[in-house]
Amino acid sequence: MASEAEYLQTLAEIFASSDDALRVGIGDDGAVVDVKNGSLALSTDMAVEGTHFNREWSSLYEIGGKITAANLADIYAMGATPRYLMVAAAVPKGFSIDEISQLARGIHDEASKVGAVVVGGDLTHSPLLTISISVFGEVENPILRSGARLGDIVAISAMPGASSRGLELLKSGVRDERTAQHRYPTVDYSKIEKLDKKSCHCLTDVSDGLVAELESLASASRVSIEIESAKIASDFHTLHGGEDHIFVGTFTKLPEGWIDIGFVHSGEGVRIDGNHITHQGFTHF
Amino acid sequence: MASEAEYLQTLAEIFASSDDALRVGIGDDGAVVDVKNGSLALSTDMAVEGTHFNREWSSLYEIGGKITAANLADIYAMGATPRYLMVAAAVPKGFSIDEISQLARGIHDEASKVGAVVVGGDLTHSPLLTISISVFGEVENPILRSGARLGDIVAISAMPGASSRGLELLKSGVRDERTAQHRYPTVDYSKIEKLDKKSCHCLTDVSDGLVAELESLASASRVSIEIESAKIASDFHTLHGGEDHIFVGTFTKLPEGWIDIGFVHSGEGVRIDGNHITHQGFTHF
Repeated sequence: MASEAEYLQTLAEIFASSDDALRVGIGDDGAVVDVKNGSLALSTDMAVEGTHFNREWSSLYEIGGKITAANLADIYAMGATPRYLMVAAAVPKGFSIDEISQLARGIHDEASKVGAVVVGGDLTHSPLLTISISVFGEVENPILRSGARLGDIVAISAMPGASSRGLELLKSGVRDERTAQHRYPTVDYSKIEKLDKKSCHCLTDVSDGLVAELESLASASRVSIEIESAKIASDFHTLHGGEDHIFVGTFTKLPEGWIDIGFVHSGEGVRIDGNHITHQGFTHF
Repeated sequence: MASEAEYLQTLAEIFASSDDALRVGIGDDGAVVDVKNGSLALSTDMAVEGTHFNREWSSLYEIGGKITAANLADIYAMGATPRYLMVAAAVPKGFSIDEISQLARGIHDEASKVGAVVVGGDLTHSPLLTISISVFGEVENPILRSGARLGDIVAISAMPGASSRGLELLKSGVRDERTAQHRYPTVDYSKIEKLDKKSCHCLTDVSDGLVAELESLASASRVSIEIESAKIASDFHTLHGGEDHIFVGTFTKLPEGWIDIGFVHSGEGVRIDGNHITHQGFTHF
C-alpha cells in the first residue's frame, strides 16, 4: 500500500500544468488562481458507482473521462469557457496507485481537450467509487435556460440517443464498440466553442434526455418548444436517452453544423407536431 | 416522493442570498458570480457516511455543519476569505425533503457564520450519504505550508483533541454533550479573521491531527518544528486527534488569543523537547 504522499505525488505529476494564472497547485490546503475583472461560471457534478457508472463495463479511464465531459458540458451550457477543475474522489480501500492514475488520466485527458486544468481536489475512501468534480469557467454573458424567445429556432449540436442505445446493449451483455458512446461519450466541443453566442438566447446540455431538457427550457422561459417530427427520429433513445452531453439551444439563426429541430412558440411544455410529449425514463434525481 | 423541481425549490429557498456579486444562482446548469482582479483560493472536501460521519450519532444538521466547517477551514488556512460554496450531495433513495432540508440548513447556517453563500450544486443518489463541497475564496497573499522560517513561533488557535475525545465517547456508547465537538466542532473563525496576516508565514488547519499537520508543515518548509511539552498536553487526543479544525501556523509574533506551543528550528520532522514524534492513528486517506 502506497503512502498518501506517494498518491499525491503521482496525482501532481498527472495534473502538472504550465498555466500562467495558476499560483498554487496540488499539495496545499487549496489551490490559488489569478482572475481578472469579470464573471466566473461554477458548476459541480457527482457520480456514484452503481448509480451513474458500472465498473464491470467501463474502465477507470473511461469513467474519469465521462464524468469530466459531463462537468465541462455544464460550463459550456452557461455560455462559459471551462478553465479549472477541482476533483474530489472517494475510492475503495486497497485501490492501487495504478488504478487512481487511470482515473486521473481519464479526467486529465478530457479536460485537456478544452485546455482546462485540474488544480486540486480531495482523495478519500468509500466502498462505492464516488467522484465529484467542480469546474470554474470564464463567462461574459451567461446564456440561461430562461432566455428562449418566441420565434427562435431550436437546434441541437448532434443527434442524441447513442449513449442510451449503448446502455441498452451493455445491459443485454454486448461489450463491443457499439457501446462506446455510453461508456465514454465523445463530446464535440468545437460545436460550442465556435458558436456565435450573440445568436444564442438559451442553452443547456442533454444530461437527462432531450425532451427532459426541452421541458426545462420551456418551463424556465415560459414558452412552448415545438419539435417537427420530420426533423428528428421519434424513437425512445433519441427523445428520452440521457448522458450524450450534446447541446440544445434556441437561436435567432441556425448555427453552422447544428441541427434545426423546431421552434419556440407561445404556450407551455414540449410538443411534437403540436402534440404534448413529456419525459419518460431515467432522471439523475 | 417529491419531484426534482420541489427539491430544487426547497434548496433555492434555504440558500437564497442577496449577495450583489451573485448573477446566477441555483436552478441553471451552473452559477455565475462577478469577480474582481486578484486571486481566488479553491478547495474541495468530500465526506462519506461510515467513513467520515455516522448518522446514528450525528443529526443531518450536524453533518452538514461539520463538513462545511472543514471546507471553510481549508480556505482560511490558505490565508483567504471564503465567499461561495458549491455543494454536491448523493442521498439514499427515499430521502425526504425534510431530511434534505436539515442537511442544507446545517450547511447554510455554518457558511452564514462567515458570510459565505451556497450558489449551486448537484443532488443525486447513493446508498451511502456522500457530500462534497467546493469553496471559493478571495486571497491577496496566499499563506502556504512551505512558508515557515527559522525562529518563527509555532502557535495554535485553540487546543485540539476535543473532537477525538468525543469520538472515543461515542464509540463507547456515550451520547451526551461531551461528544458535541465531534458531532459538530465549533470553529472560532474570529481567531483567523482577526489574524494579522503579515506576521504569519505558514498556516494550515488541523484535519488529521496536530502532529500530522506539523509534519506536513515541517516537510513542505524543510524545517523542524519543535514543541515544548510545558506548553501543551501530551495525551493522544491532543497530539494526534483530528477534525477539530483549529488552525496552526508559524509567526514572527504570537497573535492575540493564540497559544504558543514551540518554534521553528533547522532540521526535519516534529520534536517534543528534542525527541522526534510521528503521527499515530487515523488519516483521511
